[in-house]
Amino acid sequence: MQVSDLQGKTIAFAASGGLDSCTITRWLADEGVNVVCFTGDLAQPDEKSMDEVRQRMLASGAADFVLLPLQEPLAEAGLEVMQAQACYEGRYWNTTGIARHIVVEGMVPEMAKRGIGILSHGATGRGNDQVRFQLATNMLAPQFEVYAPWRDETFLARFGGRSEMIDFCQQRGLPITATKDAPYSTDANLLGLTHEAGRLESLETPSQFVTPEMGCLPINAPDKPEEFTVRFEQGRPVEINGQAVSILESILQANKIAGQHGVGIAEHLVENRFVGVKSRGVYEAPGMELLGTCYTMLLQLVLDRRARELFDQLSLFLAKQIYQGYWFDLGSQMARQAIGVSARLVTGTVTVSMYKGSVSFVSALDVPHSLYSEENASMEAVGEFNHADSEGFLRVLAVSARALAAGGQISDCSN
Amino acid sequence: MQVSDLQGKTIAFAASGGLDSCTITRWLADEGVNVVCFTGDLAQPDEKSMDEVRQRMLASGAADFVLLPLQEPLAEAGLEVMQAQACYEGRYWNTTGIARHIVVEGMVPEMAKRGIGILSHGATGRGNDQVRFQLATNMLAPQFEVYAPWRDETFLARFGGRSEMIDFCQQRGLPITATKDAPYSTDANLLGLTHEAGRLESLETPSQFVTPEMGCLPINAPDKPEEFTVRFEQGRPVEINGQAVSILESILQANKIAGQHGVGIAEHLVENRFVGVKSRGVYEAPGMELLGTCYTMLLQLVLDRRARELFDQLSLFLAKQIYQGYWFDLGSQMARQAIGVSARLVTGTVTVSMYKGSVSFVSALDVPHSLYSEENASMEAVGEFNHADSEGFLRVLAVSARALAAGGQISDCSN
Amino acid sequence: MQVSDLQGKTIAFAASGGLDSCTITRWLADEGVNVVCFTGDLAQPDEKSMDEVRQRMLASGAADFVLLPLQEPLAEAGLEVMQAQACYEGRYWNTTGIARHIVVEGMVPEMAKRGIGILSHGATGRGNDQVRFQLATNMLAPQFEVYAPWRDETFLARFGGRSEMIDFCQQRGLPITATKDAPYSTDANLLGLTHEAGRLESLETPSQFVTPEMGCLPINAPDKPEEFTVRFEQGRPVEINGQAVSILESILQANKIAGQHGVGIAEHLVENRFVGVKSRGVYEAPGMELLGTCYTMLLQLVLDRRARELFDQLSLFLAKQIYQGYWFDLGSQMARQAIGVSARLVTGTVTVSMYKGSVSFVSALDVPHSLYSEENASMEAVGEFNHADSEGFLRVLAVSARALAAGGQISDCSN
Amino acid sequence: MQVSDLQGKTIAFAASGGLDSCTITRWLADEGVNVVCFTGDLAQPDEKSMDEVRQRMLASGAADFVLLPLQEPLAEAGLEVMQAQACYEGRYWNTTGIARHIVVEGMVPEMAKRGIGILSHGATGRGNDQVRFQLATNMLAPQFEVYAPWRDETFLARFGGRSEMIDFCQQRGLPITATKDAPYSTDANLLGLTHEAGRLESLETPSQFVTPEMGCLPINAPDKPEEFTVRFEQGRPVEINGQAVSILESILQANKIAGQHGVGIAEHLVENRFVGVKSRGVYEAPGMELLGTCYTMLLQLVLDRRARELFDQLSLFLAKQIYQGYWFDLGSQMARQAIGVSARLVTGTVTVSMYKGSVSFVSALDVPHSLYSEENASMEAVGEFNHADSEGFLRVLAVSARALAAGGQISDCSN
Repeated sequence: MQVSDLQGKTIAFAASGGLDSCTITRWLADEGVNVVCFTGDLAQPDEKSMDEVRQRMLASGAADFVLLPLQEPLAEAGLEVMQAQACYEGRYWNTTGIARHIVVEGMVPEMAKRGIGILSHGATGRGNDQVRFQLATNMLAPQFEVYAPWRDETFLARFGGRSEMIDFCQQRGLPITATKDAPYSTDANLLGLTHEAGRLESLETPSQFVTPEMGCLPINAPDKPEEFTVRFEQGRPVEINGQAVSILESILQANKIAGQHGVGIAEHLVENRFVGVKSRGVYEAPGMELLGTCYTMLLQLVLDRRARELFDQLSLFLAKQIYQGYWFDLGSQMARQAIGVSARLVTGTVTVSMYKGSVSFVSALDVPHSLYSEENASMEAVGEFNHADSEGFLRVLAVSARALAAGGQISDCSN
Repeated sequence: MQVSDLQGKTIAFAASGGLDSCTITRWLADEGVNVVCFTGDLAQPDEKSMDEVRQRMLASGAADFVLLPLQEPLAEAGLEVMQAQACYEGRYWNTTGIARHIVVEGMVPEMAKRGIGILSHGATGRGNDQVRFQLATNMLAPQFEVYAPWRDETFLARFGGRSEMIDFCQQRGLPITATKDAPYSTDANLLGLTHEAGRLESLETPSQFVTPEMGCLPINAPDKPEEFTVRFEQGRPVEINGQAVSILESILQANKIAGQHGVGIAEHLVENRFVGVKSRGVYEAPGMELLGTCYTMLLQLVLDRRARELFDQLSLFLAKQIYQGYWFDLGSQMARQAIGVSARLVTGTVTVSMYKGSVSFVSALDVPHSLYSEENASMEAVGEFNHADSEGFLRVLAVSARALAAGGQISDCSN
Repeated sequence: MQVSDLQGKTIAFAASGGLDSCTITRWLADEGVNVVCFTGDLAQPDEKSMDEVRQRMLASGAADFVLLPLQEPLAEAGLEVMQAQACYEGRYWNTTGIARHIVVEGMVPEMAKRGIGILSHGATGRGNDQVRFQLATNMLAPQFEVYAPWRDETFLARFGGRSEMIDFCQQRGLPITATKDAPYSTDANLLGLTHEAGRLESLETPSQFVTPEMGCLPINAPDKPEEFTVRFEQGRPVEINGQAVSILESILQANKIAGQHGVGIAEHLVENRFVGVKSRGVYEAPGMELLGTCYTMLLQLVLDRRARELFDQLSLFLAKQIYQGYWFDLGSQMARQAIGVSARLVTGTVTVSMYKGSVSFVSALDVPHSLYSEENASMEAVGEFNHADSEGFLRVLAVSARALAAGGQISDCSN
Repeated sequence: MQVSDLQGKTIAFAASGGLDSCTITRWLADEGVNVVCFTGDLAQPDEKSMDEVRQRMLASGAADFVLLPLQEPLAEAGLEVMQAQACYEGRYWNTTGIARHIVVEGMVPEMAKRGIGILSHGATGRGNDQVRFQLATNMLAPQFEVYAPWRDETFLARFGGRSEMIDFCQQRGLPITATKDAPYSTDANLLGLTHEAGRLESLETPSQFVTPEMGCLPINAPDKPEEFTVRFEQGRPVEINGQAVSILESILQANKIAGQHGVGIAEHLVENRFVGVKSRGVYEAPGMELLGTCYTMLLQLVLDRRARELFDQLSLFLAKQIYQGYWFDLGSQMARQAIGVSARLVTGTVTVSMYKGSVSFVSALDVPHSLYSEENASMEAVGEFNHADSEGFLRVLAVSARALAAGGQISDCSN
């Protein structure tokens, strides 16, 4: 799809309020497109106010501005990410990835209501976000078209990168805050924050080069540990430090508390993007990290070995699905239902201690579905477990182990 | 197998030199068994000297004492664990698990040389170590028998737990250091250290209750960050901070440096033992944690998405295999060969910064097999990647996404 | 648990009515145990009537006989096996494995009603069935005890195998049909039938050595192909050859029709038993094979690539779970929920042709969730798919493929 | 890449000799491109002779014709597919998929020798083959360009499908054999044969609609079963029916013998193409099916449960890799090495009986690495396995099963 196809038409543009949003909105308006800007209120930690975004987009030529109240849905989705421990390539909490799905899910019914059938976004042609916008739209509203200026030759011929956009906006007096010497770019929502590009592209730039926005670096955290207690019921945080919380509140509070202690701040990852190139990100997700760590401490008590093996597979699967834009497809539905079964058993109160970026276990109490039994775990002669039974157990195992040897199957590859 | 079967026979007893070793050796000798104690020199950080162990075992009635020089083989095995990132249930570096295999592998030829056909050990009947001793022996020497006093009704009738053993040893003046008020027990080798049992069995005991033996808690670490540089060649650490090192040296040095900064100290895990009960451990593995983190930073550069997916599966598989005593079987051989293929590409120099228990990325240099390209990663219009190509890419993806919608397959389970 | 613990007590014995059942019941009664025999009505194809089983068990000394009406529950469980395509080690439809769970699930409430707290069974100490009886009982009724004569030293000292049992029964005039020259033993229910032991233990005995009981060998099947049409709705067979059927009827009818054509008859498998030894079975499951094949033809239309990958994992997982006795645990619940999500999309009418043991595709119609589009599949220039888009698609893929080459990562191991 | 970029240049065109090859060669020559046709000798069962292909391509305007002797390399690759049991989506032996890699691997050095840097092929823009050609070329020769007429707008504007191509060729008197009423198209090599498109696109066309080219339909097979014996050594077939064979001979002979009995003929599969659309194929691979079945009978004897679980994962992984064009990447290298470890244990002689499309087990002999032991498998009281040991084994398992119940974790989802 190209801009020439859009003239005189109305499109819904997913605007963040940043440099790309202003540039694209202005440029499209100049090209004769009627641009309605949609912004999700995701409690972005890096934005002063949604009202400011509205002003900025209208000043950039938007025909209208629609604010989508998405804090609750995003918190719920973040909870599912946490329940699945769905970190992409072992590190990244998928905070941007999941949010793209939620934004599209928020836009679609609103677009339908207004009779708009084209969704547009400012994600670039090498990134993952374009894939998420595209696939989520195609799945939720297959009749809609998606227009991505960063994949439109006309737009690309006009704008090579940040520098041309800044010039463009400054020449038109648009209210951008970006400057040419910004060392990297940032995307944020209540679940977390992604820094990438610019100076971070060099693998000689330390991850702590970034200026944290959701807390501080460990070195700047308090010199005294602080305890944090969260109660989960059926997989959902319901109390923090003894006070009842909603899911949304739990994440916002955990962000604040964990961020102050440098927890989940400035995580480095070089990851495999969906389009096949590697990229480097530095991530902040203090609340997800803190709550997610407490959650996993309960999972350790609740999941037996077999359930754990399946859980680990589902976790890897779902992390990839979210990252690649497939949160709504059949595979994700299957995995989410399965994870949901495990989540219903996750009830209990966990206390941890935070200090200079690390989180350590203090206690786990009132865990009705716990499989942990002090008596059975004990090496002492207590509990249901009869040590001598192990003799039969091991004799049974020995038959197959010896069969391996007899079959000439045993080897230490290292030799 | 029971003690009555052993009278007048010679057995090889895998002795650590601790309370169990002294008790069992003495008790067996009293029962008329000829006990030859075998101890692996694993550079145990918690033992003064191997000579002291020798003295203790001879004083406890051992007919002979054999010291097995296993530092090098254990370091090599630890390297394979690191290359596979084989942490059991996401946390535990398998340091005790791998060592049991190496000890048996060291004992078997020495036993054969001496004509001893019965291997004995002091691991309890509820733990994992009994399984590892048993299976490794059955696989490497199927003709050998294994005798485990903790699964022998006669022994169990005599000794209910630590308390009776301490009384027994004290009455006989054996040189034990254990006391009845020891708050937990510890197993250690050069790769790491496991605290469990005793007061740690309660989930109200914080993990930082332990007294670290391979370093210090984060709170006691220096207030200043320190950088650490390691060079890997074909998956093997060859230089630390610019000085050439052997594998063994790399682990010993990394232990010291990381331990000082509280890295990899006092990790909490409630895990699923092979016998099916859950147990709680607090782990130290500073060197594995530090080197393993640097290693994973190179893996991020080297593994494409497909190789990463397979690697993650192999990693889960091998972690389970080691934990459960199957390091020598066919499945492990298959996985180890596959991991070895990836290790050969892991060359490069990584620098990280340690501070109060955390490790952060500083740089990665000279990585010949890196797939990361600053130019391709960039959102700017540089490099081989043509943004407009993504239009075709996404149109192709869109066909299947829309087909999902048309097929009525799309749902957001959360609704 | 040993027979001496049972004197004067009442136990529930899971009786099949065969040689083991008669022997054990008589022997236990002789030892002073009050034996209530429970038999599941599983529409066993190899049993004349449930009434005959009742007579036989009472004649063998049973204090009472309880018939459990389990045809429906077993058919429903079989359907779930089919929906998951849960064949153990690629071949075995788990027909005996699933039935053990259903029998225990049927016995437990009935035992509770009668105040019986000990469940007993005649499965041997090397097989899988003992594990399934044990685990299902422990999970569904943890307060119950399980007594297995084949693991009781007293019983084992009395009976070494079939031969002694036949002597024992004949001496007491028990109504057994077994003879010493029976070439193998068989377990059956409406889902399928397992032949093992005896002459089948030799790997020089062809699988077609067995005499089929649920149909005929391919060579004895009709010389004319026959078509078979089944309609599934939301994963459940609702019509066969145009006639409405219940789940139970669908399996019974499919057994008959497929069996006549030699479909799913005499499948050979050497499998890994839970206890670690290998065993050889020859299986019949004509209905499961026929319906399962039709089901997979719909799955091919409905599962996109990602859902398929997850499905394949779940299928392997669940096959193992059923085989090993874990149908009721958390892992199975998770997997079953996930599979259920996929099953809800499986609607359509499949026709196949049966001939001499093989099943071939004829047509698939009315598949509302099908992702197959003749137009999109076509190589001709029709449908939504623009061939030229693939150029961009492949240029995107090419970037990463070339990066692999540039990184020195490419190799053909065969060279 | 477009044809206008190619004028006056020399390209290497992967020609099959069929309609596409003739059309494209002629059209490119007409456009001023110097077309050197490369054809792999893959023992295509559907081609009279390679000499005929040469004549046809030269008659179509090829500047030169290069015959690549690829029978041996393809047979070796097919063996690896068999050793990995790498069937895509459970059915398809990847016979076309693997061949594309081998053809590119054959072309690259020959192209380099002749100084040709552009590889071209006639695969369409919706299929998988274009992906395999592209990726294999990019990986093995990243400096080469790939030109695909079916993704070139100029070509697409000229040719909409088969019909226009036939007209084009007939008008120019090119020696094509294709006719407008060909009901489907076929790709073949010594490993197998793929029918798709045309009338097969309809799901109302039975799979037996095809006319087999590598054998016959079951209904046309002999009325008498025939036995087939193959000996494998270290994973390689070395003897068929007592006669020594090379790998290539083993496949060619197995094709002939199995094809005569309707084995592996006309397998139906609706599969997920890499580009995301579903397509329907009808496959013939009699030799792969027959040898692969015999191979799996040995695997059943050789793989213990753990190795089997890993093997199944690797098998799924490698099937996808081959199908999608990633036979040479790091992930495949890892998986191939691991599979190779298992293959080295696969030694033994298997006899099966073929009849009307089905293959049944007759015997397995001389299997040195077999884990199957008649004595241990037996339910009778023989062998190493002590039935009473199972009592301890199961008491150990019972502890965790009861813990699940106590934790409120047990449920039968079906209720």
